Amino acid sequence: MSDSCFNYPIVENGTEQVRNLLLKSVNKNNSEVEQALTDMLTAGGKMLRPAIFLLFNEFGPEPKNSDKQIKIAASIEILHMATLIHDDIIDDSPLRRGVASVQAKLGKDVAVYAGDLLFTKFFQFINETMNGTDFMKINADAMEQILMGELIQKANRFNPNNLIETYLETVTGKTAELFRLACLEGAYFGGATESIVETAAEIGKNIGIAFQINDDILDYTSDQKTLKKPILEDLAEGVYTLPLLLALKKDSSKFKALLDKNHQLTTGDVENIVADVTQLGGIEKAIQYAESYTNQAEKLIASLPTSKAKMVLNKAIKKMLTRKF
Amino acid sequence: MSDSCFNYPIVENGTEQVRNLLLKSVNKNNSEVEQALTDMLTAGGKMLRPAIFLLFNEFGPEPKNSDKQIKIAASIEILHMATLIHDDIIDDSPLRRGVASVQAKLGKDVAVYAGDLLFTKFFQFINETMNGTDFMKINADAMEQILMGELIQKANRFNPNNLIETYLETVTGKTAELFRLACLEGAYFGGATESIVETAAEIGKNIGIAFQINDDILDYTSDQKTLKKPILEDLAEGVYTLPLLLALKKDSSKFKALLDKNHQLTTGDVENIVADVTQLGGIEKAIQYAESYTNQAEKLIASLPTSKAKMVLNKAIKKMLTRKF
Repeated sequence: MSDSCFNYPIVENGTEQVRNLLLKSVNKNNSEVEQALTDMLTAGGKMLRPAIFLLFNEFGPEPKNSDKQIKIAASIEILHMATLIHDDIIDDSPLRRGVASVQAKLGKDVAVYAGDLLFTKFFQFINETMNGTDFMKINADAMEQILMGELIQKANRFNPNNLIETYLETVTGKTAELFRLACLEGAYFGGATESIVETAAEIGKNIGIAFQINDDILDYTSDQKTLKKPILEDLAEGVYTLPLLLALKKDSSKFKALLDKNHQLTTGDVENIVADVTQLGGIEKAIQYAESYTNQAEKLIASLPTSKAKMVLNKAIKKMLTRKF
Repeated sequence: MSDSCFNYPIVENGTEQVRNLLLKSVNKNNSEVEQALTDMLTAGGKMLRPAIFLLFNEFGPEPKNSDKQIKIAASIEILHMATLIHDDIIDDSPLRRGVASVQAKLGKDVAVYAGDLLFTKFFQFINETMNGTDFMKINADAMEQILMGELIQKANRFNPNNLIETYLETVTGKTAELFRLACLEGAYFGGATESIVETAAEIGKNIGIAFQINDDILDYTSDQKTLKKPILEDLAEGVYTLPLLLALKKDSSKFKALLDKNHQLTTGDVENIVADVTQLGGIEKAIQYAESYTNQAEKLIASLPTSKAKMVLNKAIKKMLTRKF
């Protein structure tokens, strides 16, 4: 998935402006942190959330790609990057976007400060664009929701009885909240009607959940080269995602020994788990879940007024959420 | 140094309210993170910055210890705690406030999220009390200044040619900025005149620098039991503070081998360094630096209108900044 999901000049032009603004803002005298963030920004980050924000801008009459709108779009990407960097510390993740993660390259110490620096920038960007509005609280609460999603996930590691509901709660926080924010702010700061703004938020939430479920399915169905990160890294860390949870629900007996916290998973173990998850219908059932959230998003998009942006959005959703498994 | 620095009922009562508000706000469903923050809050944190804020409230006519003021005081302590927790990750610090640091007790992962959760709370607290005012930007910039101080310090590790100016720049960011914020916001949200607010900010900055220099001197002159943290932890991490920098300026030859980055410092090495720093006048000279900032703070305090708060402040400064070395 790349910017070309959108294939829409005003959005592609806007995401380039966002990237340039971000590159300019991370120049902070400390070469190590600066370099790490610059690398991350140039490693082909998809700018998916800013692109969605800019697309939802189209549903209102405000001028497009203004400095203010670019800065808000950038604030969303900054918050995303900050949480990615800190998550990679927790996950000991060696790769991010196909290149070494900040923590793998420069250590946990630099990664802690790099994330903190981005939180500071996030705070400054939203302050410069929405101080005095309710959106300050909306952003602070979004930041909390994202973190809560991560904390719920962390608290449920190595829990084979993790509920589907808890998984969805995690995903709604850690992933969908930012998509929700991108759609909501996109519509609002584009000047859309209150009703469109509300619909946009719901669309974002559904896109976000579907997006994460797809990501978790790909983890079971792709090879490392396609995915640009180690496959089933989550599994070794005790993060049990939807395909496995659905398989466990069907027949947990097969996984008992393999999912013991103290068991070091071999490549063979991982292959066995993937085979069992597939055989028990975990992947098929997870695809149904993803489709149901995608359908819900599409239904809501259908209710939006007819426009070029709506067509582009429809196409983009199809590209984003119906990736080949 | 404890709350009793202030020995002033309205401030002592206020800091208790701050502590209770903080304890209430860190209850976030995730028992590990929650417990870590609760432990930190009950381990005898001095609440020095909230106390200073509350004391500076006295220089204006606004009612004292209102919910708003308690929340702003708490926001300062939250920002302080968040940076402490993340710094302890960077320093691999085993102790904080005489008890195991969050990262030592629960690992770096929990410490990353615990700090992030506090940044979120900080953001919410200031949003609830000062949304729409210039103080949003003042707080975002303060957060950046603190981080910049830490980054400059990190960039200068194991640098025996670190300049006194760079040390002071670090200290102005990582420590003095929060004291400056506490005094500035205390006076402003107490309703003091513009001139008092400006003076308060300068007082805070000078107190903060003197406070950090004293802390760094104590590191060379105390035993671990008194200090409640390992002595000269900074040294092993390559953080060269004022006493050593002043000694290095006088005669760097003595330290060459010992300060090599790859040299593992033994207890004997540390004792030798302390002896050399002392003998070369590094501690004596650092005390003069601390005194000059303390004097500057006292001079500025003298310019404030006569009041009970001014008397209390004068006494508190003496207690805080003339600790026995």
